Amino acid sequence: MCPANKSAMEAAYDLLANRAKRDMKGAEVDSALKEVITIALEFLGSCEPVELVSKVRSKQYFAFRQVGTTKLTRPINKDLFDIELTLANLDRLASADVKSLHPDNRAAILYTASISYCCHTDLIRSGDQKTPGTFFEAFIAHMVARTFDMNPTRSIAALNLDLKADLPTDYIFALDDGKSRIHLPVKTSTRERAIQPWAHQRILDGIYGVGRFKGILVCLAETNMQTRTHSVLEVCLPDQWSLYQMFIAQLHRVYYMDPPEIYLPLAKKYPFIQVKHFAKFFDEADMLVNASPLA
Amino acid sequence: MCPANKSAMEAAYDLLANRAKRDMKGAEVDSALKEVITIALEFLGSCEPVELVSKVRSKQYFAFRQVGTTKLTRPINKDLFDIELTLANLDRLASADVKSLHPDNRAAILYTASISYCCHTDLIRSGDQKTPGTFFEAFIAHMVARTFDMNPTRSIAALNLDLKADLPTDYIFALDDGKSRIHLPVKTSTRERAIQPWAHQRILDGIYGVGRFKGILVCLAETNMQTRTHSVLEVCLPDQWSLYQMFIAQLHRVYYMDPPEIYLPLAKKYPFIQVKHFAKFFDEADMLVNASPLA
Repeated sequence: MCPANKSAMEAAYDLLANRAKRDMKGAEVDSALKEVITIALEFLGSCEPVELVSKVRSKQYFAFRQVGTTKLTRPINKDLFDIELTLANLDRLASADVKSLHPDNRAAILYTASISYCCHTDLIRSGDQKTPGTFFEAFIAHMVARTFDMNPTRSIAALNLDLKADLPTDYIFALDDGKSRIHLPVKTSTRERAIQPWAHQRILDGIYGVGRFKGILVCLAETNMQTRTHSVLEVCLPDQWSLYQMFIAQLHRVYYMDPPEIYLPLAKKYPFIQVKHFAKFFDEADMLVNASPLA
Repeated sequence: MCPANKSAMEAAYDLLANRAKRDMKGAEVDSALKEVITIALEFLGSCEPVELVSKVRSKQYFAFRQVGTTKLTRPINKDLFDIELTLANLDRLASADVKSLHPDNRAAILYTASISYCCHTDLIRSGDQKTPGTFFEAFIAHMVARTFDMNPTRSIAALNLDLKADLPTDYIFALDDGKSRIHLPVKTSTRERAIQPWAHQRILDGIYGVGRFKGILVCLAETNMQTRTHSVLEVCLPDQWSLYQMFIAQLHRVYYMDPPEIYLPLAKKYPFIQVKHFAKFFDEADMLVNASPLA
């Protein structure tokens, strides 16, 4: 990787981070997102794919490496990754106009775009776990802010008798009266930190009343690769998630770019955790804010 | 550091970890703890102290470095650190016979012993965040297990209609009927992970009934050193802790080896989080398990 290319990505990333902070739903974020994703995908297109050993029945994985090197990206779901399709639809994606995309293509375009910068970082920067998370947060928050036509906040005032504290939160969309407000935690993966969104939801329920905020957790994937064997697992804790949903608070949706196999059946039995592909968000966005909180 | 010395510590650490897993309250853990702490403190005694800039009004900090090198340990509270005093009282400490120590010395002996291995690791191993945590957990769990004369478990069965799940937890002391059970999370520092012990307490309250388990969080310190300026802060979030205590669950005690200045007043106003030095645990241990859960 030549320094010029690296600088182009760094400049594009910085622009995205700054614009997202200033006006998350703004059109200027569209163009910054397109720039980052384009640089990342064109770079990955110049790399070579390496087959991985999938331990997940329904999925095949590969990783990229730069020609002549051995360092691998994180695992990529083969069925959901399509560079050309994503680049060809980047305008509509970046403006969150997902409903204009062919329904069969939405999941792949969302997945490819959201994992693009992460894979670029895996190969180009060492030990950087922060910027992939920040990119993914900006990508998701922009899509949701565009959809709700509202910028999110990242803290809320907790006023309660003599208590006056600012609670730092994940993204909060304080929609108009008569609609549900949205609490939007965003994480590339959850692992042992999964309990946090449930606990934050509990605090919001306690301060503002149960159902006033709907909790919508958005994640990229739960894949984990063993470096020695190149085998890929999905790290899932469905029993613990059920206990969180029963005893801490109720999340309304959990969207993934690549939904783990084991989490999908949680929607069908008590305590009913609705895990879906993030592509579905755009179909049900109206319902999420308009329907009764417990629907 | 010569390889022979390093191996002695690795052997001592492995022995401690294995014995703690087998019989946490056992006398064999006493001797393994003494071995690890002795090697660590003798090594630190051969290092040179470096003054740090304290941003905490009531505390002075220093760090150790090996003679002729620049790498520093984590910050050490000067008032609570005493190598000779600790080595001279190691037998009584390792058998959790803290009440036989002079009351004025207890806090320093507990602090010095618990930070010893962490500081040794800071200088000898690079990027090792795991073994200091494991050492501290074993040290605290051994002291508590000895005090209650009972070995802890690390998961509990959640049985609830058709739900049968094992919830991995921090240490659980399932004392006899008529006594409170103890939920003992142990962390070298809490930072943004502080919400976890409150959320786990909430799950225990939900499954077993409020007050059935008393939550006792034990931490080492909340210091943070800026590498450039050598200045030391305590990273504290008292408003967020108050919200956790109000809206997630109620922890019964938070013990520190070096209690952060800002957390101590939390005991005096709603929602009353009892933050104390861990030395106090030994005085109130009987009360903790015998009194009414809400006392």
